[in-house]
Amino acid sequence: MFDIIIIGGGTAGMTAAIYGARAGKKCLLIEGNAFGGQIIYSSSVENYPGFSKISGAEFADKLFEQVSNLPVEIAYEEVVKVDVGSGVTIHTDSGEYEGKTLIIATGTKHRKLGLENEEALVGNGISYCALCDGPLYKDQEVCVVGSGNSAIQTAIFLSEYCKKVEMLVRGNVLKGEQNQIDLLNQKNNVSILYNTTVEKLLGDTELTGIIIKNENGETKKDLNGLFVSIGQVPDASYFKDIIEIDEYGYIVAGEDCKTNVPFIFAAGDCRTKNVRQLTTAVADGTIAVIGACKYLENKN
Amino acid sequence: MFDIIIIGGGTAGMTAAIYGARAGKKCLLIEGNAFGGQIIYSSSVENYPGFSKISGAEFADKLFEQVSNLPVEIAYEEVVKVDVGSGVTIHTDSGEYEGKTLIIATGTKHRKLGLENEEALVGNGISYCALCDGPLYKDQEVCVVGSGNSAIQTAIFLSEYCKKVEMLVRGNVLKGEQNQIDLLNQKNNVSILYNTTVEKLLGDTELTGIIIKNENGETKKDLNGLFVSIGQVPDASYFKDIIEIDEYGYIVAGEDCKTNVPFIFAAGDCRTKNVRQLTTAVADGTIAVIGACKYLENKN
Repeated sequence: MFDIIIIGGGTAGMTAAIYGARAGKKCLLIEGNAFGGQIIYSSSVENYPGFSKISGAEFADKLFEQVSNLPVEIAYEEVVKVDVGSGVTIHTDSGEYEGKTLIIATGTKHRKLGLENEEALVGNGISYCALCDGPLYKDQEVCVVGSGNSAIQTAIFLSEYCKKVEMLVRGNVLKGEQNQIDLLNQKNNVSILYNTTVEKLLGDTELTGIIIKNENGETKKDLNGLFVSIGQVPDASYFKDIIEIDEYGYIVAGEDCKTNVPFIFAAGDCRTKNVRQLTTAVADGTIAVIGACKYLENKN
Repeated sequence: MFDIIIIGGGTAGMTAAIYGARAGKKCLLIEGNAFGGQIIYSSSVENYPGFSKISGAEFADKLFEQVSNLPVEIAYEEVVKVDVGSGVTIHTDSGEYEGKTLIIATGTKHRKLGLENEEALVGNGISYCALCDGPLYKDQEVCVVGSGNSAIQTAIFLSEYCKKVEMLVRGNVLKGEQNQIDLLNQKNNVSILYNTTVEKLLGDTELTGIIIKNENGETKKDLNGLFVSIGQVPDASYFKDIIEIDEYGYIVAGEDCKTNVPFIFAAGDCRTKNVRQLTTAVADGTIAVIGACKYLENKN
């Protein structure tokens, strides 16, 4: 029986593990993919206090090392089902764990365009990660869909490899930080199409082009790669029968990270909040553990 | 005219400066004392994600370096008065600055015992900082007042220098993290007196002893040094005519860091919240800037 089970080894989950172990609680951290969460796709993190510049992967490594130095049990397993009684039972693809409290820190996953054949083309012309796949498109022509920091960074990163990078922006402005926009504007192989949406993906087993729509109507565009960077969606669907989830799929929880079940907490990007950053993820990991510890104290 | 004026160069304030500058805003960061805030008194920070172990002073240095790499204007000045109109005017001991928005990140200061002659004895037997003053008490007998992490760390730190360390705890338990308590229990020159309060300070210009009170009644105790580690109090008193302050002196603001004045935000330890940690300070710094940027956008 664990005092605290943490599902999700991103920034919020690993912070929870650090605080939980230091509080002397028996903690289990479950992660089915890579530790680090979404930040591992970021080529350069410059807004996390303490590091002027660090890659997302390196940051994740440092967090994981910090967790590894503490008595935290780690399970590299995929959660398949969660049962709730007086505590929780977590069923994974290869085990079963009982916990007195649960911290859900499952974060978000890439938002998809929602177009026909998209799933089949992922890895065959469609990518959600420039850092992972950018080098495959050396000297080729690519498009980036999106308008935020992550799309801008994707375009900047790709401009170093690709012959031509075109950003397709749904609205009429870029929504990233000003200094990122300034950096983008210095790249002379990057162009931006505003008020433009992707309507159709061309190609059966490999992306060969797209149909875009804007004030000029629908146009066919040949390209080699399409990088989709239109944000994140929560990854909390399998908790929907257990705790309150909002209409967008986020777990309903305030600053105190408390859900509607007294021994279940939500931390990081998966909970309802306005600002999703590394800085707010570490706050949530901290606050959720303190809430779990208080619950355990009052129960005993 | 600055877009954002930040008062207080602790963790929350410096994070706000990082986010503000990266958002392309003209930022002024005002600090009258050392940059870093309360954390500089911490000998070892082990719960800030990204650093397995770092001294508070080193952490503060890293943050300051990060701020210094960005176009943030810095004023080493003491704020003496704040006027509020359609924006803010900050009067310091040597200047005057106008800002469209204000982020208050003034943090907290050491809570005092509230005993007669305390002020006069600070630096003459009474200390709030083991890291600063501990070495002065080599091979001597000292007491530590307090029961939280900070008091426990103070006792552990002093146990390396002093002949004998006695902790005076008001309640019947230590309130720090379990691994800190475990570490304390390994020190054989540290003892703990529970349900004990300090009633009187002895000595006119130099502390010579104290009167303590517990189940054995009042007792005189000779000692060389008294380390007071009973928490923090907010340092926001000169805002009390401008914005809403709670009965304990904290600025009333929720997770969004918004005060009752739409262009004034409170970030970090100085605002009403339950968890005051580095992790929650960096979240506040981030959120306050995003709030200030939204205010500026809507105003233009």
